[in-house]
Amino acid sequence: MDIATVNTLPYEDFVNIFGNVVEKCPIVTAAVWSRRPFVSFTDLEAAISEFIDALPESGKEGILRCHPDLAGRDLQSGTLTRESQQEQAGAGMDALSSVETSRMARLNREYKERFGFPFVICARMSDKAGILRHLSERCRNERAAERARGIEEVKKICRLRLQSLLLSDAPNKL
Amino acid sequence: MDIATVNTLPYEDFVNIFGNVVEKCPIVTAAVWSRRPFVSFTDLEAAISEFIDALPESGKEGILRCHPDLAGRDLQSGTLTRESQQEQAGAGMDALSSVETSRMARLNREYKERFGFPFVICARMSDKAGILRHLSERCRNERAAERARGIEEVKKICRLRLQSLLLSDAPNKL
Repeated sequence: MDIATVNTLPYEDFVNIFGNVVEKCPIVTAAVWSRRPFVSFTDLEAAISEFIDALPESGKEGILRCHPDLAGRDLQSGTLTRESQQEQAGAGMDALSSVETSRMARLNREYKERFGFPFVICARMSDKAGILRHLSERCRNERAAERARGIEEVKKICRLRLQSLLLSDAPNKL
Repeated sequence: MDIATVNTLPYEDFVNIFGNVVEKCPIVTAAVWSRRPFVSFTDLEAAISEFIDALPESGKEGILRCHPDLAGRDLQSGTLTRESQQEQAGAGMDALSSVETSRMARLNREYKERFGFPFVICARMSDKAGILRHLSERCRNERAAERARGIEEVKKICRLRLQSLLLSDAPNKL
């Protein structure tokens, strides 16, 4: 799909296709539709990024809280979004040993108790060892720094989801 | 559920229970969790309302675009959220005559073409005749006025959804 086609989409199709580039936050996609026409995909991505940056800090925390735990309850119960399921499986989160599962659960819990939002990382740019290392290290950060870091990761996830959709001839989702 | 119980909920339970008080916008609920403790339900409702008001105009349009049409494609295909399904059925949207269905579809289309977002009304505070009359009248408004009016209706829907959840002993959704 080229950007000219994207620019012709009614908001309903635009949100159907791109509504989950920020996990469970179709409001972001639905809001940036107002910014059409986009001159390029980079421009679309920048509009999403600017919308997120303009949110109050509570709104950024809200975005993080819409993300599932890595190797958490939603993975186990099969209730992840399609995108998250693929990303977590790609990073080996669905094939942890029982020791790794326990360690991940403990660190996720510590992280959430400390910050009040979940650990978010772009799983497609990491692997099992990297995720466990980052989770362990980031538990020691300050809250504001970690909120900003989480949002950086949201933007990386968003970029890769956008790329996948644009390369995969997304109109079949219409 | 009393407000003291609400204030003890971890964000995951809070979002599970209240995440759809603004249709398909769990980010709003997830964001206001940062504002705990709430002194009353009115206080929780006010926090939601303030979060919405602080969004840029594109964000308010984004909220409206997360709403389904009344008597539209999602009702026909059974893909409405549980809350929307009940609200639309309560207002008779699932039992329109073929003439009414055609009129509703034509007016919804006109409205969306004019404004770039869907007609939103608190169906539980109206009925079939009222909805058709408002839709017909509101098609003639200015865009900014209609965006503000749509957001007023979102807040009415939110208040009634909150009340239903709080009166129905929502912990069974945990």
